Amino acid sequence: MSRIQDAPWTEPLEAVLREWAQTAAARDKAGGTAFHERRLLRESGLLRLSVPVEHGGDGAPWSTTLDIVRRMAQVDSSLAHLFAFHHLQLATIRLFGSDTQIRHWLGETIAQGWFWGNALNPLDKSTRALPDGAGGYLFDGRKSFCSGARDSDRLLASAFDVDGRLLIGATPTNRAGITVLDDWDNMGQRQTDSGTVVFERVPIAMDELLLQPGPLSSPFATLRPLLAQSILSHIYLGIGEGALQAARDATLAQTRPWIASQAERPAEDPYVLAHYGDFWIALEGARLLVERAMQAFDRAWQRGLALTESERGEVAVAVAASKVAAARAGLEVAHRMFEVTGARSTTAALRLDRFWRNVRVHTLHDPLDYKVRELGDWALNGRIPKPSFYS
Amino acid sequence: MSRIQDAPWTEPLEAVLREWAQTAAARDKAGGTAFHERRLLRESGLLRLSVPVEHGGDGAPWSTTLDIVRRMAQVDSSLAHLFAFHHLQLATIRLFGSDTQIRHWLGETIAQGWFWGNALNPLDKSTRALPDGAGGYLFDGRKSFCSGARDSDRLLASAFDVDGRLLIGATPTNRAGITVLDDWDNMGQRQTDSGTVVFERVPIAMDELLLQPGPLSSPFATLRPLLAQSILSHIYLGIGEGALQAARDATLAQTRPWIASQAERPAEDPYVLAHYGDFWIALEGARLLVERAMQAFDRAWQRGLALTESERGEVAVAVAASKVAAARAGLEVAHRMFEVTGARSTTAALRLDRFWRNVRVHTLHDPLDYKVRELGDWALNGRIPKPSFYS
Amino acid sequence: MSRIQDAPWTEPLEAVLREWAQTAAARDKAGGTAFHERRLLRESGLLRLSVPVEHGGDGAPWSTTLDIVRRMAQVDSSLAHLFAFHHLQLATIRLFGSDTQIRHWLGETIAQGWFWGNALNPLDKSTRALPDGAGGYLFDGRKSFCSGARDSDRLLASAFDVDGRLLIGATPTNRAGITVLDDWDNMGQRQTDSGTVVFERVPIAMDELLLQPGPLSSPFATLRPLLAQSILSHIYLGIGEGALQAARDATLAQTRPWIASQAERPAEDPYVLAHYGDFWIALEGARLLVERAMQAFDRAWQRGLALTESERGEVAVAVAASKVAAARAGLEVAHRMFEVTGARSTTAALRLDRFWRNVRVHTLHDPLDYKVRELGDWALNGRIPKPSFYS
Amino acid sequence: MSRIQDAPWTEPLEAVLREWAQTAAARDKAGGTAFHERRLLRESGLLRLSVPVEHGGDGAPWSTTLDIVRRMAQVDSSLAHLFAFHHLQLATIRLFGSDTQIRHWLGETIAQGWFWGNALNPLDKSTRALPDGAGGYLFDGRKSFCSGARDSDRLLASAFDVDGRLLIGATPTNRAGITVLDDWDNMGQRQTDSGTVVFERVPIAMDELLLQPGPLSSPFATLRPLLAQSILSHIYLGIGEGALQAARDATLAQTRPWIASQAERPAEDPYVLAHYGDFWIALEGARLLVERAMQAFDRAWQRGLALTESERGEVAVAVAASKVAAARAGLEVAHRMFEVTGARSTTAALRLDRFWRNVRVHTLHDPLDYKVRELGDWALNGRIPKPSFYS
Repeated sequence: MSRIQDAPWTEPLEAVLREWAQTAAARDKAGGTAFHERRLLRESGLLRLSVPVEHGGDGAPWSTTLDIVRRMAQVDSSLAHLFAFHHLQLATIRLFGSDTQIRHWLGETIAQGWFWGNALNPLDKSTRALPDGAGGYLFDGRKSFCSGARDSDRLLASAFDVDGRLLIGATPTNRAGITVLDDWDNMGQRQTDSGTVVFERVPIAMDELLLQPGPLSSPFATLRPLLAQSILSHIYLGIGEGALQAARDATLAQTRPWIASQAERPAEDPYVLAHYGDFWIALEGARLLVERAMQAFDRAWQRGLALTESERGEVAVAVAASKVAAARAGLEVAHRMFEVTGARSTTAALRLDRFWRNVRVHTLHDPLDYKVRELGDWALNGRIPKPSFYS
Repeated sequence: MSRIQDAPWTEPLEAVLREWAQTAAARDKAGGTAFHERRLLRESGLLRLSVPVEHGGDGAPWSTTLDIVRRMAQVDSSLAHLFAFHHLQLATIRLFGSDTQIRHWLGETIAQGWFWGNALNPLDKSTRALPDGAGGYLFDGRKSFCSGARDSDRLLASAFDVDGRLLIGATPTNRAGITVLDDWDNMGQRQTDSGTVVFERVPIAMDELLLQPGPLSSPFATLRPLLAQSILSHIYLGIGEGALQAARDATLAQTRPWIASQAERPAEDPYVLAHYGDFWIALEGARLLVERAMQAFDRAWQRGLALTESERGEVAVAVAASKVAAARAGLEVAHRMFEVTGARSTTAALRLDRFWRNVRVHTLHDPLDYKVRELGDWALNGRIPKPSFYS
Repeated sequence: MSRIQDAPWTEPLEAVLREWAQTAAARDKAGGTAFHERRLLRESGLLRLSVPVEHGGDGAPWSTTLDIVRRMAQVDSSLAHLFAFHHLQLATIRLFGSDTQIRHWLGETIAQGWFWGNALNPLDKSTRALPDGAGGYLFDGRKSFCSGARDSDRLLASAFDVDGRLLIGATPTNRAGITVLDDWDNMGQRQTDSGTVVFERVPIAMDELLLQPGPLSSPFATLRPLLAQSILSHIYLGIGEGALQAARDATLAQTRPWIASQAERPAEDPYVLAHYGDFWIALEGARLLVERAMQAFDRAWQRGLALTESERGEVAVAVAASKVAAARAGLEVAHRMFEVTGARSTTAALRLDRFWRNVRVHTLHDPLDYKVRELGDWALNGRIPKPSFYS
Repeated sequence: MSRIQDAPWTEPLEAVLREWAQTAAARDKAGGTAFHERRLLRESGLLRLSVPVEHGGDGAPWSTTLDIVRRMAQVDSSLAHLFAFHHLQLATIRLFGSDTQIRHWLGETIAQGWFWGNALNPLDKSTRALPDGAGGYLFDGRKSFCSGARDSDRLLASAFDVDGRLLIGATPTNRAGITVLDDWDNMGQRQTDSGTVVFERVPIAMDELLLQPGPLSSPFATLRPLLAQSILSHIYLGIGEGALQAARDATLAQTRPWIASQAERPAEDPYVLAHYGDFWIALEGARLLVERAMQAFDRAWQRGLALTESERGEVAVAVAASKVAAARAGLEVAHRMFEVTGARSTTAALRLDRFWRNVRVHTLHDPLDYKVRELGDWALNGRIPKPSFYS
């Protein structure tokens, strides 16, 4: 996974990561909005990464964009999430929107340096779309889990019309009627600003709605949930890798093995080595599954509207396997790392528990049990996952 | 494990627990010393619990005392630890001290309502005992992990003399030269005050030293580490039970199952039920191992100095098995509970992550890997654990 | 679990076990009916064990009877199963039959030295009960999984009448129309003779049917499935204990550790010890759960018809937990034991794989997943298991 | 892993597999030498597969050769092992022998259609090499675990000279003094003929010894153990895949779900699906690790003597990770498959236990614990595995 090296974004990325790393623990404690770190991201140019060259972006493939998400998550999984969701909104426009919309919003994203936030949570049915009588709608209600809405320039928002149809629209975050609450206070992923956005009869014009071709309208369009799921995999994996690195630092810094150990130092203790071996195997297996899924995803994306249901299904299987493996590996390393770092590593000063809190919270995005079930249905019955916003 | 009911301490205990419960989450956030809750404990009379009737206490067996520790840990594992370590100091006096010392310190504990703190960490070799020329010593150095030293009346403290001999002495906490730092800030067990105590040439008189019969001086005296290990087991188990209860409340409060579930509500979902089944089996198995170990411990305690090495060895095996099982069960439930409580249960308001943080930190007291090894040595080679401060 | 010692059946049991042990591996290879070993069992007097003293038996409690099943299973889990199922048939008569029937059949069992076999498989619906016009029935059809039917004196058989009602009757095995096939050839439990019994219009008279009070007719009568489940737990546990003993012999016989090990001999290798530690914890936890469940079962049995649904429910929960734990422990030890016994222990001469094959087959009796679910329903929803032939 | 398709060996391979499959269960029961199936292999041309084109072979890369081993192991892991070890002997000649030897033995292998067997077990020190006074040696002693020696044309044999130096020589199997015993009778891998070869002062001429460059004489030469380890990975993975397929057939053939299940058929049961999901994830992760390790191996092989220690080390890490993952996945699927196939699938007629017996035996080749340790040493200390015959 060294394909990032030598690319034009390598140096800006490393610079951002270095600066994030210095305050990651402190900001985990503080929570709230990471204005400074978000600005670094804006200034780095990385918000352009996935935008096609024809629209002024860097045209990086999704595998590259998400590999950078993984790298970010090693250091700060909240900010990795915000970065990833910015690109997810842009992908959503590309998959659900018209050529005009794509040209407009992607072009402006580059021109204005927009940072996109998320107000698209299809499980939260409390926001209604009321016809405005002119083909557009008024969005009204409260939306939860709106990651990255704070300090954003544009939002993708969703609402249900009277017939229960999901409508997705793009809007300036500062449009009248929109209030982004500062109410995210969670045990993990503390700087994702995944709080509430209140919509009070917010007008969304017809040309702001992603109706042509619209949500999940083709096998190609159903790549959107696969991209979202892949973002999760990369974040889980990155957290696991970050946890391993932090554990390694702590173990190597210890000089005295446990009194009952015959090793000269903890890093030679047979049980310590066994834990690290298990960590490595878990992460390495997840890494390859994630990498392979992204290769399949890149190929599927390039197929565009020619993508068939069954081709999409095979990508979905690869994505599901990678997600479960990455979640399990991330959880395992973050949970067990303390068994090799020792009692003193639990000091609040290090906040090493943030790896566990972050991956624990994030792996609840949608239940792993049902992902495993999907894979079982494939392995046993040969059924590909049925496309939805979560599969 | 309903043997607590109907005892004289049942009502005070329940009263204390009710009050602790109301602030447990908030105090986990705040950290620091729980002055108010410690006072409740003093006023409850429970600090007398393990003291023999002949010395004015309630004469409860250790199984009962630790069962109460377990109950406390369901609600607040920091305070459970302080309560348990108070009694551990008293047990230490009974095991390592002379009849005169026992009579004096236990009697005064009852008479004065003392709360004992811990400054006895035999792994921390930085405190030296310098001869005072009169048979006593000056303790000098810094001691880490001194749970419950703050707001305590008396301390058991340890130091090493020039020959590397471990000396343990009792002292008023407020003796000149002793400074109890308020420097405990950890990811878990946040109100155990397990910070640093600084000893600056603190005089410990000869009759304050536990020399007759002295530390680990007989199979009976080596029950001390087994009591300490058993305290850990009860706390791990209590945390697991508390986590299960909290999870249950959260699951039952949910009304909407996952969209891919065919169940009517989360509490009927097959995977949710499977997780609860696994939690139950883990906790139930640990519960019985803990209960059985304490029965063996009570019997061994009653044997007093007649206790043989091999009898003690069998108790040690039972204690070790119960500790590993309780640690694993507590860790498992606290780690996995979120898979049945759902994404919304991760709000910082509930602080449900405290179960994991508490058990994660506390299970690092001494490495589980080496406990498992001890059990393997028993199962394979028939060797009983060699007594030490950790086995 | 040393309560067997000093009882009148201790010596006969040990004699039987010694002789079984000498041929256990060879008979596992041969399969078929263990005529000689069954005769040893008949001659030992152990077939009288559970029969109440008033009917001429030894009046041993069920906990004792099943503890002997466990001991037997350490050596030969097929024969343990036959022994246990003999007693299960007698229990079935006591729970489902009238006083007259109990007196008659139990008395004759003692007087004639009967060995009972099983033809009562309520999941196999292919045997019909046709009215004989005189209040009795003709049983007609094939019954599978009829453990111990071969070489038996009496059978409990079941069939469904035209209304789908389950009828259970007792019959001499050699009654005209009954053919016990020698068709059991399985990967494990190879000498349980769990083959087919063919019923060709076999007359079962009214007084041979267990109608008063009848199957599962009261909370007390529903102890029958709990006894059956408990038999399974004891067999799983016994297999696990037998496997551990066999592993131990093999490890201790090895002199050369793995080339990369720093231990002097395999029995000192840290990873070998860790495996044994894990085996011990698994078996010890299961042992206590099994023991506790049987204490509850004995108490429930003594309550007789006064037993309430909820009392029965709590026993069912204890039995379910013990069964899952024993199954998992038995499977784990039998599966993993080779990791500590080394490559040479796989020679067919030792047939050490029989522990795995036996426990693997036997744990499929009814799915563990649904037992775990039952426990989850208890832990989460407070629901006791609904009585059936499997819960 | 579909790279086998369309190659010249595809059709012969499929023909061989079809015929092997028909008798795999029966031959597992019979054990002994699979003369007929070995002849099929000879006739198929597949024994030429890895031999370079310049020596008359097919010149397939090792990744292809081992992928075919994996395919074979799905059907019959004993024969897969014999096929693989034939090619391992040829690789050994290429790595340890001189150009003359390579040209001679590989050429003759093609010309004469030789099938090579293994008598090279460096852990078995009981065969001595006595100088014959003419630069050659007399090999004398007994060698165990000599897979494929029976019915072979040529052997690679090893012995230790008086200085403890390992000597490896090639010899016709029918040379005077060599007796291949028919004494392999094991719980698994029953047709690998891994029995004893007796050497009675067998002359091995100087030019039959692999002395130039000799065993493990360069980083390139130490690819030999990595090839041997990779063969194991492919066999473990193939067994797991074969077990999954067999389980699938059994589950899909069942029509009646468990009585407590709400599914219409077993293949829709939530717990059944969960098991299949877990099987899939385990196998898929192992598959990718195995595939990636072989890509690295192919590249390293092509580097030849230019291969550096650290390059070799990275291959070793990839091979070790793939081996542990494949072993665990194979063991898990073969152990758990019965939980989804149900009680009737345990009939001896199907011999489904052979998957477990085969993988259980084969994964003991060298201890997994020490492979995990190697990986831990890499993950924590950055140390690459030290080359030996097992790493």
